Amino acid sequence: MAEVSVAVIGASGYAGAIAAGLLHRHPGFDLRHVTARTEAGMKLGELHPRTRVPLVLEPYDVDVHGEVDAAIVAYPHGAAAPTVAELHARGVRVVDLSADFRLRDRGTYEQWYGEHGAPEVFETGDAVYGLPELYRDEVAQARIVANPGCYPTAALLALAPLAREKLISDVVIDAKSGISGAGRSATATTHFVSANENLTPYKVGAHRHTPEIEQELGVLGSELAISFTPHLVPLAQGEMTSCYVTPTRPVGQAEVSELFRAAYASEPWVELSEAPPGVLEVRDTNFCRISVHVDPRTSRVIVFATIDNLWKGAASQAVQNLNLMFGRDEAEGLL
Amino acid sequence: MAEVSVAVIGASGYAGAIAAGLLHRHPGFDLRHVTARTEAGMKLGELHPRTRVPLVLEPYDVDVHGEVDAAIVAYPHGAAAPTVAELHARGVRVVDLSADFRLRDRGTYEQWYGEHGAPEVFETGDAVYGLPELYRDEVAQARIVANPGCYPTAALLALAPLAREKLISDVVIDAKSGISGAGRSATATTHFVSANENLTPYKVGAHRHTPEIEQELGVLGSELAISFTPHLVPLAQGEMTSCYVTPTRPVGQAEVSELFRAAYASEPWVELSEAPPGVLEVRDTNFCRISVHVDPRTSRVIVFATIDNLWKGAASQAVQNLNLMFGRDEAEGLL
Amino acid sequence: MAEVSVAVIGASGYAGAIAAGLLHRHPGFDLRHVTARTEAGMKLGELHPRTRVPLVLEPYDVDVHGEVDAAIVAYPHGAAAPTVAELHARGVRVVDLSADFRLRDRGTYEQWYGEHGAPEVFETGDAVYGLPELYRDEVAQARIVANPGCYPTAALLALAPLAREKLISDVVIDAKSGISGAGRSATATTHFVSANENLTPYKVGAHRHTPEIEQELGVLGSELAISFTPHLVPLAQGEMTSCYVTPTRPVGQAEVSELFRAAYASEPWVELSEAPPGVLEVRDTNFCRISVHVDPRTSRVIVFATIDNLWKGAASQAVQNLNLMFGRDEAEGLL
Amino acid sequence: MAEVSVAVIGASGYAGAIAAGLLHRHPGFDLRHVTARTEAGMKLGELHPRTRVPLVLEPYDVDVHGEVDAAIVAYPHGAAAPTVAELHARGVRVVDLSADFRLRDRGTYEQWYGEHGAPEVFETGDAVYGLPELYRDEVAQARIVANPGCYPTAALLALAPLAREKLISDVVIDAKSGISGAGRSATATTHFVSANENLTPYKVGAHRHTPEIEQELGVLGSELAISFTPHLVPLAQGEMTSCYVTPTRPVGQAEVSELFRAAYASEPWVELSEAPPGVLEVRDTNFCRISVHVDPRTSRVIVFATIDNLWKGAASQAVQNLNLMFGRDEAEGLL
Repeated sequence: MAEVSVAVIGASGYAGAIAAGLLHRHPGFDLRHVTARTEAGMKLGELHPRTRVPLVLEPYDVDVHGEVDAAIVAYPHGAAAPTVAELHARGVRVVDLSADFRLRDRGTYEQWYGEHGAPEVFETGDAVYGLPELYRDEVAQARIVANPGCYPTAALLALAPLAREKLISDVVIDAKSGISGAGRSATATTHFVSANENLTPYKVGAHRHTPEIEQELGVLGSELAISFTPHLVPLAQGEMTSCYVTPTRPVGQAEVSELFRAAYASEPWVELSEAPPGVLEVRDTNFCRISVHVDPRTSRVIVFATIDNLWKGAASQAVQNLNLMFGRDEAEGLL
Repeated sequence: MAEVSVAVIGASGYAGAIAAGLLHRHPGFDLRHVTARTEAGMKLGELHPRTRVPLVLEPYDVDVHGEVDAAIVAYPHGAAAPTVAELHARGVRVVDLSADFRLRDRGTYEQWYGEHGAPEVFETGDAVYGLPELYRDEVAQARIVANPGCYPTAALLALAPLAREKLISDVVIDAKSGISGAGRSATATTHFVSANENLTPYKVGAHRHTPEIEQELGVLGSELAISFTPHLVPLAQGEMTSCYVTPTRPVGQAEVSELFRAAYASEPWVELSEAPPGVLEVRDTNFCRISVHVDPRTSRVIVFATIDNLWKGAASQAVQNLNLMFGRDEAEGLL
Repeated sequence: MAEVSVAVIGASGYAGAIAAGLLHRHPGFDLRHVTARTEAGMKLGELHPRTRVPLVLEPYDVDVHGEVDAAIVAYPHGAAAPTVAELHARGVRVVDLSADFRLRDRGTYEQWYGEHGAPEVFETGDAVYGLPELYRDEVAQARIVANPGCYPTAALLALAPLAREKLISDVVIDAKSGISGAGRSATATTHFVSANENLTPYKVGAHRHTPEIEQELGVLGSELAISFTPHLVPLAQGEMTSCYVTPTRPVGQAEVSELFRAAYASEPWVELSEAPPGVLEVRDTNFCRISVHVDPRTSRVIVFATIDNLWKGAASQAVQNLNLMFGRDEAEGLL
Repeated sequence: MAEVSVAVIGASGYAGAIAAGLLHRHPGFDLRHVTARTEAGMKLGELHPRTRVPLVLEPYDVDVHGEVDAAIVAYPHGAAAPTVAELHARGVRVVDLSADFRLRDRGTYEQWYGEHGAPEVFETGDAVYGLPELYRDEVAQARIVANPGCYPTAALLALAPLAREKLISDVVIDAKSGISGAGRSATATTHFVSANENLTPYKVGAHRHTPEIEQELGVLGSELAISFTPHLVPLAQGEMTSCYVTPTRPVGQAEVSELFRAAYASEPWVELSEAPPGVLEVRDTNFCRISVHVDPRTSRVIVFATIDNLWKGAASQAVQNLNLMFGRDEAEGLL
């Protein structure tokens, strides 16, 4: 199989850098370019030593970077859309780590994120929501893949088996993320002295992953308004979504366990566990680890799903999507 | 005012040691004895250097330790009751850090904890549930004070203003605690390598603080089965209860904020905050810090309450109770 | 005793804020003002919740802030000198947390820090090096106290008993500090994701505390060039200096232990320990904890000294100095 | 190339488990057995989820486990020797993670570790000290490889270029290790609440890695008594040795830098860095990262070397040794 040439556009952030590291060592892809604005001229391996990628960061130039077969765009929301559109126009197959193509309804997008940066491409509806466990076939054909948000990745894998069966009457999602979720910017929030030995809820009732989760639950069959509340916890990488589901009808442990087994038995990147999983168990991997519990006292169904927010929640899921888009084994380059 | 003689029975654990340190420096109490079994003979300040208490740990002996005016008993559940009963019989006023006298119904106690160790004292109903913000007057008169569990302390302070108004139709409590909550025993769970960079739910649907919270919500006017799920987070001390309340009728932010202001305006140890609080803000203090939010999308009322699990969740709340029991200023020795 | 009015100039940084918190609760001082530039208008207790100081941060104004009896100046090196000079000229007794008045030789100062901001005051030699354990009497009389650097505080307390006896032929000081030592600025270095699970040497052969340690060792009787190398460790507060001394003549454990006992037996804030101390043992205190070991294999004398870099290494030592300057008990307000 | 069958004897500890995980995914080895005593019957992937090794832990049985081509023995010092001897007698090529065959002089071994468990094998001198960067050819031929201690690995890579040139007159090694270095036993020392936000020197003047470092420095040409002092730092994996060398003659930065470049230019697992390295840069890798500095003020040569104590300091170095022993590429299975 011929190697696929690939670029990471925006490789100075955490997710872009990890994606570049994975692609650099991937037998099926040839990482040609990594780009960055401020850090252009530096080697990626100097900026992010753990990647050990010897490529020099280049300033983005569509005439250069539009020549590859595929690109991962790791730009902030809003800034991503025009670049994705530009690369798409050159025939590059793109995985976009931003939220710019995740929502299917432009009104909803603009309500949560502001004006869209490439409305004409948005309106074509060409972009596919890249959660492979839900949209494997669509991703394989897609020209633009909207890589899911980190919280939606975990929450949707936690809830999909229930949503498909229309078992969710109401759900509270209490989510916890490591500090890398706040990005590489040095702020009062990400300062070690503020974050260490601390734990804080944030964006209460206002986190932008809310409409993304609701949209996909709706597609799966469960249209509802969810309560989604993220917390910052003092660890670098890792994310837990604790989902408290009020079911539409009484369900037992056996039924629910079987539902999850059936949904995920053949999924390479979903692990079911009897005991509640810990975030450390999926650190630096593409795995999502899930446990499901029925509480007989309250009849609630409780689902815990944990991922590494920078891996399955961003970088490695993007590579998983690239694997699918180019007909490679879905696990290649990820173990 | 004459000094009150006091002993800490079981001072080798985290909570007992902190209580001893507070009492040792307290102007109104004279810490006479600290006890421990395995570590007897050691100075408390060697075992727990941060306490800087020079007293030698003594093996417990009711003939010696029953001579004080007051005692804090920091024994495990089950083991505490007989010692509390024995000290009580000698006329010692006791604050019991265990769960042995927290539940009002013996059947419920035995269902969750097993056989009671001093049923005759339990049945007298003499013990008072020592959450000072709810039972200040009762504590002042009590001979036995059952110091609340750490999670119930935070959860009840979060929910009391709503429970009193019968505003709680349903509630999900997602709680997070630092590792000291698992006690001083060295186990696979408390090992640094297991706990650091990790986060794990535990005792799903089965944590013994559940009936304690339900009991007190019931007394306040809201009889209901709650969903309570604790998680272990990688920090030493600190606890957050995130409470997701489905209200019995639609409520607005202004109404709810006013409810909390009214409830806590004159409470010395409850701080209301507009932004969600962080656990670090109450570290090593007796404060409980609370924020309340109405999510207009879902109509849910979300309340965050954070405490230091070893302080307001155990040791300093015990001293706050002792202050009340002996007519001292409630904040004395705690700043 | 009448209360002494005091201001903290520069209370938005970590050390200034802690000093303000200590003074706010100190029975002998009346904290009148706290200042800050960017955060002026905010309450200190909002910016630094743990201080619980209700005062509003004011922009610095010598006409207002020069009216107090005493001030702690917590400005960066270089910026401090003119303000210290200005307050000094108004008759305010000042404790300066910066390095601006620590060095006795202006040439050395300018070599390591650049041009001095108040050379005329520097040249008067009025400033006293404020390590109370070495200069208690001088501090009591001083109008300007140069509060020592954090590393010099620990290193000098570790080495003073040996230096006085001219026992130091050579010394390697390997120092480790928590992240708060890097200040409140949010940078790539202080970002949680960079700092956590990391440990890095920095400013190798070039740290500005080097001449300060050498100067004071010289005054004590041991003129020599030292090797001083700091490392950043993943904890918030705490500092360890590991000192490896080649003695001028063979010494035994008993002799050395006795030397330290004699030096520190009556010091309220120095604790000798047989086992090597841990930084956690002095967290949030004014204590310096020291152990001394003779290694018979190499004849080296190894001294470990640990402090809280923000407390004994800055804020609480400043309060200890204020206590001395105003005739209060040296431990007042610090327990 | 035919696959080599391999067993990990003692796979329940941290290093054994990581080695098993590496071998399980290694293209050149066939991991047939993993053994454990207490946890026998459990899957390794349940005990150590991050390994994702589906093999069941078996009780050790030489009749079963002596049938493989190669074994990694991950037993404690003392307990390892008889097992190594037994496997050796069956013709198994062994990498021993313990110290039992590291020292060349039995008297020295017994002075630091007590009686040897297999003196007859020890006396044959068949075992090779398995630091591949020093003994690559010997390892390739060896039947028994004594995998170096974690501290000696970093310290010797830091000092070898200087030792070979007889440039070391005296050296102070101040070492820092993450908590995993204390092993998987749950103790007061490894408890999260004791270890977090703490930092403590330990085994001052008495750490067993001292004679190992001295022995190998002697072989390289620098016979001397060293000062070696380890500290426990609050991180899970990672180790730093800060080496302060008094040179036998004045040396300049250029000369020393060139010495290191020459020594390590073609080493796949040694990285030279101009800035002092951080332990995070080598986390979960087989790399040793080194920087060397000449301090003109004191003429000292300062070398920092950092490794992951569980990888290059144990498990991955064992696999690197196996690669050499079976003629595989030295980096295979380690990226």
